[in-house]
Amino acid sequence: MTHPWKIIETHFNHSRVKAAESLFSIGNGIMGQRANFEESYTGESLPGSYIGGVYYPDKTRVGWWKNGYPEYFAKVLNSAFWIGIEVKVNGELLDLHTAKVLDFYRELDMQHGLLTRRFTAELPNKVKVEVEAVRFVSMVRTELGAVSYSLKLLSGDAEVELMPYTNADVKNEDANYDEKFWDFVEQSATPSSHYVTMRTKKTDFSVSWFSQYEATANGKPVAFNPVEKHAWVGASAKIKAQKEETITLYKYVGITSSLNHKPENLAKAAQEVAAEAQKFGFAALRAEQSKAWEEKWAHCDVEIGGDDEAQQGIRFCIFQLLQTYTGKDTRLNVGPKGFTGEKYGGSTYWDTEAYCIPFYLSTAGAQVARELLKYRYNQLPKAIENAQKLGFTDGAALYPMVTMDGEECHNEWEITFEEIHRNGAIAYAIYNYIRYTGDRNYLVDYGVEVLLGIARFWAQRITWSEERNKYVMIGVTGPNEYENNVNNNWYTNNVACWCLRYAKESIEWVKKMFSQRYSEIVKKTRFDELNEWAQWTDIVEKMHFPEDKERQIFLQQDGYMDKEQILVKDLEPAQRPLNQKWSWDRILRSCFIKQADVLQGLYFFEDNFDTETIRRNFHFYEARTVHESSLSPCVHAILAAKIGDIDKAYELYLRTSRLDLDDYNKEVNEGLHITSMAGSWMAVIQGFAGMRVRDGQLTFDPKLPKHWTGLAFKVDFRGEVIEFKV
Amino acid sequence: MTHPWKIIETHFNHSRVKAAESLFSIGNGIMGQRANFEESYTGESLPGSYIGGVYYPDKTRVGWWKNGYPEYFAKVLNSAFWIGIEVKVNGELLDLHTAKVLDFYRELDMQHGLLTRRFTAELPNKVKVEVEAVRFVSMVRTELGAVSYSLKLLSGDAEVELMPYTNADVKNEDANYDEKFWDFVEQSATPSSHYVTMRTKKTDFSVSWFSQYEATANGKPVAFNPVEKHAWVGASAKIKAQKEETITLYKYVGITSSLNHKPENLAKAAQEVAAEAQKFGFAALRAEQSKAWEEKWAHCDVEIGGDDEAQQGIRFCIFQLLQTYTGKDTRLNVGPKGFTGEKYGGSTYWDTEAYCIPFYLSTAGAQVARELLKYRYNQLPKAIENAQKLGFTDGAALYPMVTMDGEECHNEWEITFEEIHRNGAIAYAIYNYIRYTGDRNYLVDYGVEVLLGIARFWAQRITWSEERNKYVMIGVTGPNEYENNVNNNWYTNNVACWCLRYAKESIEWVKKMFSQRYSEIVKKTRFDELNEWAQWTDIVEKMHFPEDKERQIFLQQDGYMDKEQILVKDLEPAQRPLNQKWSWDRILRSCFIKQADVLQGLYFFEDNFDTETIRRNFHFYEARTVHESSLSPCVHAILAAKIGDIDKAYELYLRTSRLDLDDYNKEVNEGLHITSMAGSWMAVIQGFAGMRVRDGQLTFDPKLPKHWTGLAFKVDFRGEVIEFKV
Repeated sequence: MTHPWKIIETHFNHSRVKAAESLFSIGNGIMGQRANFEESYTGESLPGSYIGGVYYPDKTRVGWWKNGYPEYFAKVLNSAFWIGIEVKVNGELLDLHTAKVLDFYRELDMQHGLLTRRFTAELPNKVKVEVEAVRFVSMVRTELGAVSYSLKLLSGDAEVELMPYTNADVKNEDANYDEKFWDFVEQSATPSSHYVTMRTKKTDFSVSWFSQYEATANGKPVAFNPVEKHAWVGASAKIKAQKEETITLYKYVGITSSLNHKPENLAKAAQEVAAEAQKFGFAALRAEQSKAWEEKWAHCDVEIGGDDEAQQGIRFCIFQLLQTYTGKDTRLNVGPKGFTGEKYGGSTYWDTEAYCIPFYLSTAGAQVARELLKYRYNQLPKAIENAQKLGFTDGAALYPMVTMDGEECHNEWEITFEEIHRNGAIAYAIYNYIRYTGDRNYLVDYGVEVLLGIARFWAQRITWSEERNKYVMIGVTGPNEYENNVNNNWYTNNVACWCLRYAKESIEWVKKMFSQRYSEIVKKTRFDELNEWAQWTDIVEKMHFPEDKERQIFLQQDGYMDKEQILVKDLEPAQRPLNQKWSWDRILRSCFIKQADVLQGLYFFEDNFDTETIRRNFHFYEARTVHESSLSPCVHAILAAKIGDIDKAYELYLRTSRLDLDDYNKEVNEGLHITSMAGSWMAVIQGFAGMRVRDGQLTFDPKLPKHWTGLAFKVDFRGEVIEFKV
Repeated sequence: MTHPWKIIETHFNHSRVKAAESLFSIGNGIMGQRANFEESYTGESLPGSYIGGVYYPDKTRVGWWKNGYPEYFAKVLNSAFWIGIEVKVNGELLDLHTAKVLDFYRELDMQHGLLTRRFTAELPNKVKVEVEAVRFVSMVRTELGAVSYSLKLLSGDAEVELMPYTNADVKNEDANYDEKFWDFVEQSATPSSHYVTMRTKKTDFSVSWFSQYEATANGKPVAFNPVEKHAWVGASAKIKAQKEETITLYKYVGITSSLNHKPENLAKAAQEVAAEAQKFGFAALRAEQSKAWEEKWAHCDVEIGGDDEAQQGIRFCIFQLLQTYTGKDTRLNVGPKGFTGEKYGGSTYWDTEAYCIPFYLSTAGAQVARELLKYRYNQLPKAIENAQKLGFTDGAALYPMVTMDGEECHNEWEITFEEIHRNGAIAYAIYNYIRYTGDRNYLVDYGVEVLLGIARFWAQRITWSEERNKYVMIGVTGPNEYENNVNNNWYTNNVACWCLRYAKESIEWVKKMFSQRYSEIVKKTRFDELNEWAQWTDIVEKMHFPEDKERQIFLQQDGYMDKEQILVKDLEPAQRPLNQKWSWDRILRSCFIKQADVLQGLYFFEDNFDTETIRRNFHFYEARTVHESSLSPCVHAILAAKIGDIDKAYELYLRTSRLDLDDYNKEVNEGLHITSMAGSWMAVIQGFAGMRVRDGQLTFDPKLPKHWTGLAFKVDFRGEVIEFKV
């Protein structure tokens, strides 16, 4: 249901359980939980409870090994199922897969960060029950999760068995070799609490889950008996309940990890969190949570008038971004699926730099964005090592495509070794940050070393073609991953040359302004000013950029026009999404584009191109783009707005902001597309509001869809909060 | 050691055990056995016993699934270890890994098909023993393997425990999910014999191994007690032996499979083979084996005078080819590793058509070659299905890259979907067969349907480029697998156009000569003569072939000259082989060539090019070719001879014919390169002897390396045996 502040589900659909588990996920930037049911569910489900920064290096699985592949893929861990409450009535398990669901309602209240579910169900033994479950992970107490679970018998007196539990004996669905990633450490259970501590294999992260619980039946306290199994702690209470009687259980769970505590204190720390929460009480915690979220919204909200669909879309995106990364823990980053699924989950991609930085810059402040940049600075030695593995030398740095701790994780040669434009996005984020904040000191302390490593990489990766009398870049995959191993991808050539120029400018500036620091850097990096600069300049001057002179457009890569030119509008709907319907080679041979590629370059370097050039390229490429990456429509939306095609911009905006809500790419069951949500935010702020930074000032050029009655938001800018309203 | 008729090893080298196991492999075209030791060996070893046509579809392992990948990879099965003889002296295991090897000699007598091993070893308990083991798999009795094992105590009296056994509880080293591929069926053991029957999972092939054995100590019979474990049958005898006393054990093993027997008769059939062999006796069997091999050699030998290294090389190749495929069972084909290892083992590649057909045509006769062609005809429906999976229609056929039963097995997109030139080799083999034999009837009955399916594939795979006003072929991998997903690979474009022409000519001929059969084919295949021919002709006339006009060479693919042009001679030796030293992307970016690509085309279609053109292209590409495929040097050798560069031809010939003996590519431990051995044969016959078929006649143009004193061989040609001698 469309609602400006809520995500609402009014029917129970067996086949959409996993999709709903993703959509109704909750998190607090430190940990997150998919919307699995508290009570048992035997149907298809992806249990998912994730803790930021707690990962496992799973041994690489590959069909045919290529030299240079990493040995491990660092995975976000599915961790203990702490929300569990098993319910039996007259011995029959409450399970929505086997029960008749008479009535079902679920809402994610984004304004207050609360997940509520109500249902009426008839069990196979004909007992009817009504349930209301409310839960949240606290934005204030980042190590706390809380559940309230109420049950009423509708059909008559019965024996209700209630069993709150934590199951730590879990695994990842995406484990490469079907192994479990956790080792058991210790556990204990009492009538009013239980805890379990686990430790990850190889990486040795420890986590404790400590639950305090209490229940009342008809207002009277319920007594529990502790139950223990391997890596499983719980407590059982049998209650003789009468018709219409309400039984309510509160569960307060402290979740502490060795990222923040000494392993020997973990359980105690978790206990303190849980006990303090219990003392405070569910209602008070809930109020505290609501207030914290309201404060966030007061600062981060984007209000769209006259369009609930668009409003719900953007709020869903902002809500998810705020749930995923808060900047409180600088060891963390923004995973493409955040805390909503396993796939790509938790790892860092170029998404952070290309899509997320602007959102956090404007809503969380310079410091948070600066920490995201420092994350890459800290991993510079690993990026240099990574480049060395591929044969590069002399301090050239290639940042990994996918990483948790700086090590490359991905193993498809066409991506791992060739989708190297990611290096460009990392440099661009530094530029973008400084442009927005004016904080050029970042360059001096950190940025310039990163830029130097990246520039050196490009200088080695680009080769001279005697044939053309030009520099060329052979064997790359651009942002459009529906082309692999192409020569002279326009975007990559462009971003590479930009990096060389920007690195040179930045180093020159540091040299001029901070000569001592410059000397340090020269020494540390063995920088050969004369020769390296000369080489960079030569490349920039003589680089080959493919273009189609007749159509006056930039060409995605050499030979692109040799392809059969078919437009997306002429594709049969039954053929889409192509990535599910066509064999891979057919996709590669076709002219169809997965995501903004040339257009990504026009977006990044807009000021270098006149509007007519942008328009020609936009029309050419948009007609061939299938947007089968979540990162695609937002960039197209911004450019469409830029060239004044607001209808197109609006269509693309809905696609990006409601990608998961409307499941365009038929994969929301795996988790949400968190990083692209930042792109949706950009589509509004840079697209419809036309916000840009130029010469240290914010400029706006609003162009709203006709039916919108207004647009309002706030951005942080150089210490001020700017309120924008149309 | 170099020897004209033998492969000889005179030292025991722990680190070369696996390599030697490959080099000393024995087989009879129906089954084969790596040179594992009969007695226990606890060092690094790859046990390998293979039965042609008995395979298992192992679930595909892949890092990142691509649409169109096959679900299974059919693997040749490591099967029961039937040579096993465990030996203990005074309770201490005889194991060359723990013993002190005082003396070691092993020879593979290629002239007689016998493997002999002699050694003296001191066990950890200081007992000294001398052993001689002789074994073979019979060329006459194709279901028989026989072992003679003699042991003498050198150091004093001792108790010797002898245990012949068959262990069927084995697995494949290359199993994707570490599972075992065999199910146990039944077993039994008596004091003089034992057997075990196993059945493959999924494919339900059954195999029985029945051993009869007998031993004497000092001429007196030894008594055994049967021993059984799970899928393991054996018998133990304890012998109080005196110093210098010889104990001899004979083991006769019948190996029968459900390919040739009803499953319920398997064990009985195996018993008959073993019992009959035992009756005949080891000496007589050995004589029979020697005679069978001498007869083969009388027909297939290639004699090289004055060069033992070259002589040993070519005989090793011929020996292995004769061991791998005899043409007796038309369900079999020639696997790249034959019966010598697991990797690629047993499956069919384009190697058969491009490299092996000429050898079998000339040495085994037209019928055997015809059966190799029919193997593909029989799999045409699967090839059409395979093309459909990739989006092709209307009877287009794409033969698999790797197959056991017609299903594609391989799963690397750049190979599976793009190394499509294999279709060309399959068509070329038909042409080559007819050119050699004159048997155009093959076209009528079978060939023309295959050619039509292949032509249709090319006609759909090639696309029209508006830009160039030419036909192009996008996204292919040529024979040189060090380039992936390139556009307009000259070889592939060339072989595709040749296919279209040859298919058209062939169909026209059938139409003219066998109009009724033609009508049948038209109906069966819905052949649209008018339009299909017109399209084929149009493609042939307007195809784009990349070339370098300045250098007057054909270009491997569009953009090849953009690469940095470095020559192989300027590569540091420490960098080679590139495929072990460089990351994959670096290899792809470089100009280095894995195997003959443009040159493969010049070899296939030699008569279309003048010698100067061949010379220019040879010099250009040879200088850039690293020959890291076993299939490469033979083609270069033939062309080098063609252009009169005999020194180069000789260098390349040694490389191809002694590839495994001298372990150029440092991988012989995995098994031998069987299919490339046919290329070595071609290098002599087509290279140095200059044999060609022109207008139905054999022609020769001998150009021998200076130090060769002679060259002699026989070839079958149209019912005659031609003896060639220089």
